[in-house]
Amino acid sequence: MAYNPGHMKWWAWGYPDADFDSHAHPGFWPFAKEQLGVEGEGFQTPPVPLEAVQLPEPNINARFLAELGSVLHPGQISDTRFERVVHAYGKGFRDLLRLRRGLAGGAPDLVVYPENEDDVVAILRAAAHHNVAVIPFGGGSNISGCVERMDTHRMAVSLDMRRMRRVLAVDVKSFTARSEAGVFGPDLEEQLAAHGMTLGHFPDSFLHSTLGGWIATRSAGMQSDKYGKIEDMVVALRVVTTDGVLATRAVPKSSNGIDPNHLCIGSEGTLGVITEATMRVHPCPESRFVPVWIFPDFASGVEAMRECVRAECTPSMMRLNDADKSALSAAFRPPSTRLSRTAGAIFKRVLRARGFRLSQACLMLTSFEGRKSNVARRLRQVGTIYRKFGAVGLGESAGKSFESTKYDFPHVRDFLFDRGVSADVSETSALWSNILPLCAVSLAALRSAISGTGAKPWAGCHIGHTYQCGANVYLTFAFAQRPGEEMEQYLKIKYAVQQSFIEHGATLSHHHAVGTEHLPWLAADISPLGVKAIAALKRGLDPGNIMNPGRLAPSDDALEIWWRAGGPGKARTTAESAALPARKIRT
Amino acid sequence: MAYNPGHMKWWAWGYPDADFDSHAHPGFWPFAKEQLGVEGEGFQTPPVPLEAVQLPEPNINARFLAELGSVLHPGQISDTRFERVVHAYGKGFRDLLRLRRGLAGGAPDLVVYPENEDDVVAILRAAAHHNVAVIPFGGGSNISGCVERMDTHRMAVSLDMRRMRRVLAVDVKSFTARSEAGVFGPDLEEQLAAHGMTLGHFPDSFLHSTLGGWIATRSAGMQSDKYGKIEDMVVALRVVTTDGVLATRAVPKSSNGIDPNHLCIGSEGTLGVITEATMRVHPCPESRFVPVWIFPDFASGVEAMRECVRAECTPSMMRLNDADKSALSAAFRPPSTRLSRTAGAIFKRVLRARGFRLSQACLMLTSFEGRKSNVARRLRQVGTIYRKFGAVGLGESAGKSFESTKYDFPHVRDFLFDRGVSADVSETSALWSNILPLCAVSLAALRSAISGTGAKPWAGCHIGHTYQCGANVYLTFAFAQRPGEEMEQYLKIKYAVQQSFIEHGATLSHHHAVGTEHLPWLAADISPLGVKAIAALKRGLDPGNIMNPGRLAPSDDALEIWWRAGGPGKARTTAESAALPARKIRT
Repeated sequence: MAYNPGHMKWWAWGYPDADFDSHAHPGFWPFAKEQLGVEGEGFQTPPVPLEAVQLPEPNINARFLAELGSVLHPGQISDTRFERVVHAYGKGFRDLLRLRRGLAGGAPDLVVYPENEDDVVAILRAAAHHNVAVIPFGGGSNISGCVERMDTHRMAVSLDMRRMRRVLAVDVKSFTARSEAGVFGPDLEEQLAAHGMTLGHFPDSFLHSTLGGWIATRSAGMQSDKYGKIEDMVVALRVVTTDGVLATRAVPKSSNGIDPNHLCIGSEGTLGVITEATMRVHPCPESRFVPVWIFPDFASGVEAMRECVRAECTPSMMRLNDADKSALSAAFRPPSTRLSRTAGAIFKRVLRARGFRLSQACLMLTSFEGRKSNVARRLRQVGTIYRKFGAVGLGESAGKSFESTKYDFPHVRDFLFDRGVSADVSETSALWSNILPLCAVSLAALRSAISGTGAKPWAGCHIGHTYQCGANVYLTFAFAQRPGEEMEQYLKIKYAVQQSFIEHGATLSHHHAVGTEHLPWLAADISPLGVKAIAALKRGLDPGNIMNPGRLAPSDDALEIWWRAGGPGKARTTAESAALPARKIRT
Repeated sequence: MAYNPGHMKWWAWGYPDADFDSHAHPGFWPFAKEQLGVEGEGFQTPPVPLEAVQLPEPNINARFLAELGSVLHPGQISDTRFERVVHAYGKGFRDLLRLRRGLAGGAPDLVVYPENEDDVVAILRAAAHHNVAVIPFGGGSNISGCVERMDTHRMAVSLDMRRMRRVLAVDVKSFTARSEAGVFGPDLEEQLAAHGMTLGHFPDSFLHSTLGGWIATRSAGMQSDKYGKIEDMVVALRVVTTDGVLATRAVPKSSNGIDPNHLCIGSEGTLGVITEATMRVHPCPESRFVPVWIFPDFASGVEAMRECVRAECTPSMMRLNDADKSALSAAFRPPSTRLSRTAGAIFKRVLRARGFRLSQACLMLTSFEGRKSNVARRLRQVGTIYRKFGAVGLGESAGKSFESTKYDFPHVRDFLFDRGVSADVSETSALWSNILPLCAVSLAALRSAISGTGAKPWAGCHIGHTYQCGANVYLTFAFAQRPGEEMEQYLKIKYAVQQSFIEHGATLSHHHAVGTEHLPWLAADISPLGVKAIAALKRGLDPGNIMNPGRLAPSDDALEIWWRAGGPGKARTTAESAALPARKIRT
């Protein structure tokens, strides 16, 4: 009946037929091997077959099941192996490691597919009545551990929102659209385009994530400089709690006390299920340009970004790679031709003549979109500023190539995983005055932590999502796995980089959510009183702790289970214990 | 020691030496008399002398007082008649009516002046320990009943923040400033100007309101189209609760769960005291223009505003008066000269030649500020759009005259009060598609309610504070008082207009807060579950109900006291009972 986008591979990113095409990027694997000191084709670690995945014994609450059967039709309920495994985790490093090794301790006992808000109300009412945990599930793209079950002592249900995908109303006069929250990115944009509108939200996960998931995790799209972060786009919400529906009004702004939208935005499924959202939308842009520039070094690129903010002329997107990440981008080039080699050689000569040290050069990807006349003018203003900071324009071809492959990057992690290489990201945000110090200190922490595990480190960063007072700092890192100790190795490294963020004035994440992955830093980020406030909200709206238990407002023993590796009941490894922050946070 | 801006008159708006100068606006009183059917100099109702004001018997908690004495110096504590009366209320219509009649049932037993965060921590700790109510007080400019005490069964203290006025740090590189929250508007701007910066927040109450008050009530400044509403400017907060300090980090954006800043913004003193805020600031504008236009009618003005949004070229301010409010503006003109009369006559002829019906014509006040080149271009773009909708430019003189008197308007209410005329405002926000219908229906409700009290109605509206999806709708109204029934009359009218907002898709207020004045509509606005969420937050952070009790998350019998007139212990009037909404909201 309802349109139902397929699930991603259970052990990796993307649809079953989508993979990283190494032939289209012949320079990448040689580059990675050299950087990471990997020999041959690496340490081969394919995933186990689906049949070999260890699932927890289903914990079935018969009365809950009976009540569910009276409100949903059989096609809305599933307990198959595949459904349980594919809903066990998101796509974080630890999730994929566990799944590839056949550990699915986070799997729910059942998956339900509501088709309208009444279904969600009925499911939550039944769950509250029978003490069953409910884990809202959008596209399952989250990489911070937002969707795994946290205990096995009661039944857990994954509530998959993908059938609630209709855009319900577009108010073209007010530039708003009201939509069911289970709609995926491409489906949403297609429905809005029929009205000449766009949401303008294009996160890396765009193909595999939902409107409700974006709101519940405070997602950011690539063009957030123009359209804002998702929290800036929300006009009104409907959120089903175990006690009924929290609904806010579609008005541009209000002074009605504590903003009720912001009580739900970022709630990560802990208060209820976001079933509907009214969002700001925009006329589809008349014009779009994606020029790329090259800066002599990272600092001048950062200064140029800030100068655009000061001069009130930011592009729709600015993404500045540091020198290491620029080298990685170069390694991603398509197969070279004689012409491209010649052009490249000439260009390098030009850069050297301009005083560039090529090892320091940094790529800046940009996009400009909107009204034709505004775009043209903005392009001129930004070009003038960039040149002032020594940038050389590369034209649009590299930008178009980035655009065409922008949703493919997550596949690279799986390609590397197959070859015994761990790759991951950590990101945060900081004030302009803190950007360069923070990049330096967190990259150093990262490299030192990787070296500490006996591996050769590769780490780079980029700056994107600019705001008036600062920007997002996004680190990418990779290292050869120590066979059998992949989890310990990862946790030590992840701990080091998160700790460096928090110790140096940054936040635990700019757009990847708290989940279980960043929960150890929540109290340091928002202060113990902040955690207490959220716990109070949780207790008030979900007294039975039905909704996505264990996130944001954890119980006292949560620290014991936050960084476990194997799933409920599994002991933590030595390394995990070592990686735990010293202070226990009581809420 | 610390700089201490003086208090406003206890019975009226503004400093003791500031009044509405009717000689500078000779046309105003004749205009008002004609519109309202008032004879001669009206029904004279001067305020009672301070000595005649009835104060509640002080409820002194000796142990609390002793604990306070051990942490504060004597100059920080006051219980004089003047201090108690001036902290009894804000400046809402009911507040001023009660004070002029000598009723100060809302007065605290004591006023304290903390000088740093430690003082606030100590005061709140002592209050929680001894069950004393604490009412945070900024400038006392609030018109929604945010600062009066709600019961007399325990001691109540007004915590006046004005001595915490220092800007602590300005990060010119990141465009942020960290400041104590008790700083008043002019003082803040002066301290920022020393760094070449401005907050860009200029509410009508600018002279008499504080940074913390703005944040606690979700204030909006005149140039919000450029700088945002106060909630858009907050980067980080420190909020003292009875259990310690909730502190957030100065980062541009985060995905750290439910946004802890937004748990405090708009909390109206119910969770704690905002002691410090890090705000986005901006380089002082290079250039500033304040041109005024005249539109053939209201609808074309609204369409022009929306077109500016669509074309991504809004001014820093757009304020469109409807025909009635435009006529009021005309009545505010300075004394005419032969030259001005001649110019006026010529201009009217020009307008008629262009097809204007003068009774329909609407004034649009605008301002443009920022970088010189941006301002000039924006001005051209907006001019082109306005002319497309039939507008005629009036140049800057009317705009400059508005600028020079913009903070004087609240004095007019007191001038009228002296003459037996009630004047007040109600405001909300709505989507663009709802602006014209809402204006029509709420103005009709207002006029009908005024007529229903036997008075001749005057009502007008303006549209300001534009957003991508809609704008603020601001109604102004006046009517001759029925002597002895002023309160009943006011409540019936206020009820009608608020009810029309809520019944027609708008919100209870865009920037005037909930307080006691709008509390009856909170559950309808944010849904009963929204109120429940806020009550949960309140219970969690303030289990003793110490902080500004009775607001946002009222107790079950709150409805009984929300719309009372005389202060604690006074019975409601018949009219107040009639005005209460039918549904009792349980939280």
